[in-house]
Amino acid sequence: METIVVALGGNAIKQADEIGTNEEQFKNVGIACESIFKLIKEGYKVVITHGNGPQSGNLMVQQDLGTDVVPPMPMDVVGAMTQGQIGYMIQRTLQNILKKNNLDMPVATVVTQVVVSKDDPDFKDPSKPVGNFFTEEEAKKIVFEKGYILDPKPGQEHIDKKMKGHVIKKVKPTANKPYRRVVPSPDPVRPAEASAIKKLVDSQVIVIASGGGGIPVVEDRNGILIGIDGVIDKDKAGERLAEAVKADIFLVLTDVDAAYLNYGTSEQKQVRKMTVAEAKNYMKEGHFLAGSMGPKVLACIRFIEEAKGKRAIITSLDKTEDALNGNAGTTITP
Amino acid sequence: METIVVALGGNAIKQADEIGTNEEQFKNVGIACESIFKLIKEGYKVVITHGNGPQSGNLMVQQDLGTDVVPPMPMDVVGAMTQGQIGYMIQRTLQNILKKNNLDMPVATVVTQVVVSKDDPDFKDPSKPVGNFFTEEEAKKIVFEKGYILDPKPGQEHIDKKMKGHVIKKVKPTANKPYRRVVPSPDPVRPAEASAIKKLVDSQVIVIASGGGGIPVVEDRNGILIGIDGVIDKDKAGERLAEAVKADIFLVLTDVDAAYLNYGTSEQKQVRKMTVAEAKNYMKEGHFLAGSMGPKVLACIRFIEEAKGKRAIITSLDKTEDALNGNAGTTITP
Repeated sequence: METIVVALGGNAIKQADEIGTNEEQFKNVGIACESIFKLIKEGYKVVITHGNGPQSGNLMVQQDLGTDVVPPMPMDVVGAMTQGQIGYMIQRTLQNILKKNNLDMPVATVVTQVVVSKDDPDFKDPSKPVGNFFTEEEAKKIVFEKGYILDPKPGQEHIDKKMKGHVIKKVKPTANKPYRRVVPSPDPVRPAEASAIKKLVDSQVIVIASGGGGIPVVEDRNGILIGIDGVIDKDKAGERLAEAVKADIFLVLTDVDAAYLNYGTSEQKQVRKMTVAEAKNYMKEGHFLAGSMGPKVLACIRFIEEAKGKRAIITSLDKTEDALNGNAGTTITP
Repeated sequence: METIVVALGGNAIKQADEIGTNEEQFKNVGIACESIFKLIKEGYKVVITHGNGPQSGNLMVQQDLGTDVVPPMPMDVVGAMTQGQIGYMIQRTLQNILKKNNLDMPVATVVTQVVVSKDDPDFKDPSKPVGNFFTEEEAKKIVFEKGYILDPKPGQEHIDKKMKGHVIKKVKPTANKPYRRVVPSPDPVRPAEASAIKKLVDSQVIVIASGGGGIPVVEDRNGILIGIDGVIDKDKAGERLAEAVKADIFLVLTDVDAAYLNYGTSEQKQVRKMTVAEAKNYMKEGHFLAGSMGPKVLACIRFIEEAKGKRAIITSLDKTEDALNGNAGTTITP
């Protein structure tokens, strides 16, 4: 019985053209869970992880608007809240599909912290824009009122002792609102709840874990966990989850059906299969974009190299079955 | 090795005189977890549940203020979000205390739905006020804009097919803002994730579950789970959790140190020990108030009668150890 870790892309929960009502999100989760159910029916032990970008963005907007009456929570807590939210949506939906199919299997969401190194270079030079865009005037107001730092030089010390990064950067060269809050996106090391998750997987429980890339925490020198303001890439964190549960297959679901060479040009060509060496080569040649396919391919490479996984697959939700059979998507092998 | 389910009161996370900043909540959770750690050190297998009143209240206020830009989530999802939030706070805090004491034990939060009966009488006559208070004018505006029902007669049909109760009631006879939203507070039947939780407890994992009384769901006639707008009493839900993990002891922590006869009068007298029969008698005599000590005593009675538990204890956080030794608090026995 092979164990498969499925990393659901953001569009599996909220489509780009939706505002993100409860009904919309449950509808999308329903479609995603029908695909996942096929894996369960085929006998795979399934572990699910997912993004949380739109949900944490929405929550931070609500927090901002209510800031005069309710104290806003920092990003680690926001991450935890969206894990509860999306975990519940997936869990209930999957339980109902199993029930309809007369399959009696437990499903549970584990609130998951993901440990990152406090020496991660991203703490010195945050890379992940989050939340609303601001005009220069608005940006300066936030800097004045909240003590944020405006456009720090790379390496300049701007993360306080509590690892709270409060940085506003000009993220677009032009436009009316070019400023945005930027937070660290450190590399995940391991899920803090690895052993509990592994116990559940070993007991035939379908587990949802490490949502939104996990709640970002650093360890101090005594091993004490401290929550930080940051966002961990959910595919990289999903790979660490796959390591923790000793998965055979790591399945990255996104909005394109495969990895492409020369993506977006007239020469674009789907990659059906590549070895780790080939994938590294394509990476070097710049075929996979930093903000999109790049981290997914990197996570897949890691899964093969560091987690000693059998194969990693990148595809879209509707191609899941075909991709597992090698007839769609991109498969990365040793 | 005895299993103990600890139900943390709201004041273990947010004190009444606090606004509920992240720092305040982590400070309070720290105090609560130091008490819980003593139980772990004494060799108890610990399962933790907790309230979420102030957190869900705060989140609903933020949702209301942001309603023009972000679609608000219904109460089942709000409950799930606060489970992530508070679960993370307790989990990380307890992990850090264990680490400081060189104890290597996993801690994990399980997002928990609690099933209630769709025929629960509270769906016909909602009893739990939630959120802000309104003037008559504001109440009428909400009724007009959102289709809520104003002061329905008991039994009048006002829960729609999706089990969303949208009722505004005059909850105070006088005062400038006497109106408030009122939702059902149905009786918990069982945690939907019982088997996953039990597996973790059996594997020596310290589990946090059923937070805020659990995410309220009903089963349709085919066993399909549907989320509802409602609030389940966290002590009653904690008792169902104790049943699910076959706990020996059910420990209800609150802001008074014990149950009292004639509470609040010059005759008030602490009850150190009572049998189920005695407890029922005191209940009948009206010693335990409906909104406060009543449901706690009821949950304890159930724990002995239905879960066949050894003993149930009601006390305050600081008296935990003494109460376990019978030197403080109120112990309910068969």
